[in-house]
Amino acid sequence: MWITIDKTSHIALSRQVYSQIKELILSGSLAANEKLPSTRSLSKELSLSRNTILESYDQLIAEGYLESKPGSGTTVANGIIKYKSTPSVNISSLAPTPVIKKDYIDFRSGLPALDLFPQKKWAKLYSDICNTIPASAFDYCSPSGVWELRNSISKYLFRTRGIQCRPEQIMIVSGTTQGLFLISKILYKSDHKVLVEDPIHVGLLNTISSMGYDFVPIKADDKGMNTDLLKPYTNISFIYTTPSHQYPLGGILPIQRRLSLIQYACDNNCYIVEDDYDSEFRYEGAPVSSLYELNPNKVIYIGSFSKLLSPAIRLGFMLLPNELLDTYKPSKMYSDVHTEAISQYVLAEFINNGSLEKHIWKMKKIYAIRRNHLIKELNQYFRNEFQIKGQATGLHIVVAFKNITFTQSLVQQLLEQGIKIYPVEHYCIQNKEEHIHEIILGYAHLSLDQISTGIELLSKILHQ
Amino acid sequence: MWITIDKTSHIALSRQVYSQIKELILSGSLAANEKLPSTRSLSKELSLSRNTILESYDQLIAEGYLESKPGSGTTVANGIIKYKSTPSVNISSLAPTPVIKKDYIDFRSGLPALDLFPQKKWAKLYSDICNTIPASAFDYCSPSGVWELRNSISKYLFRTRGIQCRPEQIMIVSGTTQGLFLISKILYKSDHKVLVEDPIHVGLLNTISSMGYDFVPIKADDKGMNTDLLKPYTNISFIYTTPSHQYPLGGILPIQRRLSLIQYACDNNCYIVEDDYDSEFRYEGAPVSSLYELNPNKVIYIGSFSKLLSPAIRLGFMLLPNELLDTYKPSKMYSDVHTEAISQYVLAEFINNGSLEKHIWKMKKIYAIRRNHLIKELNQYFRNEFQIKGQATGLHIVVAFKNITFTQSLVQQLLEQGIKIYPVEHYCIQNKEEHIHEIILGYAHLSLDQISTGIELLSKILHQ
Repeated sequence: MWITIDKTSHIALSRQVYSQIKELILSGSLAANEKLPSTRSLSKELSLSRNTILESYDQLIAEGYLESKPGSGTTVANGIIKYKSTPSVNISSLAPTPVIKKDYIDFRSGLPALDLFPQKKWAKLYSDICNTIPASAFDYCSPSGVWELRNSISKYLFRTRGIQCRPEQIMIVSGTTQGLFLISKILYKSDHKVLVEDPIHVGLLNTISSMGYDFVPIKADDKGMNTDLLKPYTNISFIYTTPSHQYPLGGILPIQRRLSLIQYACDNNCYIVEDDYDSEFRYEGAPVSSLYELNPNKVIYIGSFSKLLSPAIRLGFMLLPNELLDTYKPSKMYSDVHTEAISQYVLAEFINNGSLEKHIWKMKKIYAIRRNHLIKELNQYFRNEFQIKGQATGLHIVVAFKNITFTQSLVQQLLEQGIKIYPVEHYCIQNKEEHIHEIILGYAHLSLDQISTGIELLSKILHQ
Repeated sequence: MWITIDKTSHIALSRQVYSQIKELILSGSLAANEKLPSTRSLSKELSLSRNTILESYDQLIAEGYLESKPGSGTTVANGIIKYKSTPSVNISSLAPTPVIKKDYIDFRSGLPALDLFPQKKWAKLYSDICNTIPASAFDYCSPSGVWELRNSISKYLFRTRGIQCRPEQIMIVSGTTQGLFLISKILYKSDHKVLVEDPIHVGLLNTISSMGYDFVPIKADDKGMNTDLLKPYTNISFIYTTPSHQYPLGGILPIQRRLSLIQYACDNNCYIVEDDYDSEFRYEGAPVSSLYELNPNKVIYIGSFSKLLSPAIRLGFMLLPNELLDTYKPSKMYSDVHTEAISQYVLAEFINNGSLEKHIWKMKKIYAIRRNHLIKELNQYFRNEFQIKGQATGLHIVVAFKNITFTQSLVQQLLEQGIKIYPVEHYCIQNKEEHIHEIILGYAHLSLDQISTGIELLSKILHQ
């Protein structure tokens, strides 16, 4: 038997013998019922220990390539179809994940200041908790999430949002996207649609439509979703809305519209998904109340720690009406069992010991300075040529430049010159033409210098 | 205006004023256009600072309850429908998540020894990494996962399984369940079915059927899925299989069946999902080869760290054929964006510095001792009355007791006496009667004492 052994290879000797005999069988060079040399003679032939050969043979027997019968030695098994192993498509030509050099100032929205994530504090807390939690914490946890975190969040919501709920209603999810995904899944009916704000976060719209839904865009203006436009629609699974700070336009839904929305949901027996993605960062006035508190039986409230802490940790939660709990839990169970548990314990403690609120308070001051600086720079470079929307809250503003249309080629030109901006038009489903003068400027993750340089560059190019 | 202030409450004073005025408006006690007292006079009336009242009014204006016009003071806004706020259903009667006191010996399968999770090592590594990774690591990552981990896994697979693949093909998922869920989603066609082994892991079967699939059970025997039974079926999206250690029966799929399976997949243009859930813990012979290496274009290989480390950390991966990569990535993106990223960096380093293989090696020795002890105890208490299956690999064995039928009442009786066992029948789709004498005994998480006590108890009750 032609077997070559490479004693310098890091592949175990028995594995080398095994692989080559397997290859001989699969290629047909060793036929069914053919007798193999005894382990003793093969070990001599290859100058290997007999144990090595025994190990290879045992393995081939276990996998069904060889058969061993008392008295008749080891033979090739029957029924192995001659098979040309198909090598994987050569993908050495594929480039590794491209790393785009970010040598531009990126006014992307919804991104917190990642360099101010409390790395040391989080690291120490994780380490303390991982060292001290009982062994049972390393088992699967409930699909609803870690009880300690659900408890902390329910208290946090009462302190900071005036929301009264019980931990039993809080379902931990791996971020807002997953929350919306699972809600879309459990409320799905083939003849039902979803009402969404227009403009809207594109990723979340894709999440909804990836579940097979048709959606109906409802125009949002400076006061959020225009609820006068809801009436014609029936057979609705749910309404997706961002009432505290419409994304991206920034409007706060007034109470009149909130009540119409709730009324619509009651009349049409559908749910409202309230995405409260950044209302903690409110620079003018106290937090806006939630839709949830107006009718906890019709509103699904989604909160996220992506903007409060970091998107990488993938932690968010949903406040579910009681009647959805029984449908929701198996749906989470069969999609990923539960959200990563150890960081849930860490976040619970981070909330309980006051670190989260301290962090938000600190970030709010920093973001307010960045926001004011951005507005100051816009005033300096553009005087009366622009208008700002949605500046009361959050991590971004929308700016309309009266005489500028943000075409693809202008966006590209800006990028080549060193700044990336996001036209509102790209977030529109309908009526794109109404938003051609508007861009989204995310500022929370940018330094004052970056903001200055960015706006100066923007002015230079737009004034050309 | 009747407002009561509780200065001892932990709710901010401005919030108390705000809430009560809001309630008066929503209940209709304050009607549209009604004029509110000036901030100055209300502050005197309530003995509060004028700033407190200003803050409340500003908030109510921001939310649309009040209007302020120069010269005419503050009035209640128009268009607020009189609304009886619906309080949340009283759920104080709901019990908190029931904590079942585990005073029984639980022979549950698929559970590693959680008390031997390397808590200290993992805690320190997490802390080191969280302290030193760049800020960009706290941003969203690719839906495919953290590059460093994908790279480590591709090398690990080559070292330990002989699998050749490139990191570009490795997709990080939040455990096997999510992998199977996303595969089910992207391969879904309404007129296509899924072929599954019978018996099978019930949770994973639910994952498949929760996507809307009909499934066809293919009988598994002591050598895994019986591939002779595949022929009649067409219009198949994929075949779910556990070829290294059939769950739960424990058979190793012989090469003849492997080749038929691949042939079937080629002929029917469908995929094979290979769930390699515990083959690292092999006590007899070297690791069984993967199906994947026979045809990397037809096989989706799923691996998990739940049994190697802990299910709580929710980390697994899939090796995808190149042609599925472009469909897969948006599907992960729109379901949860990506799997928690910081522990991905930690696991990458845990693999790279050799800790994972050391841990597996250590656990394998411990599990082998527990397994041998279990078999010894079975021999002592049951002599020739039983037969063992699937003992070569993994964290559980299947035991058939010739004259015992594991009815629901027997299982209940055993539980009441202090041991929980899992009848194979519960994992069967068809042919339940063939498995009525068999139970699954998971042993990896049990101490030698627990195993002894458990088997002694089992013997006492079964011999009654």
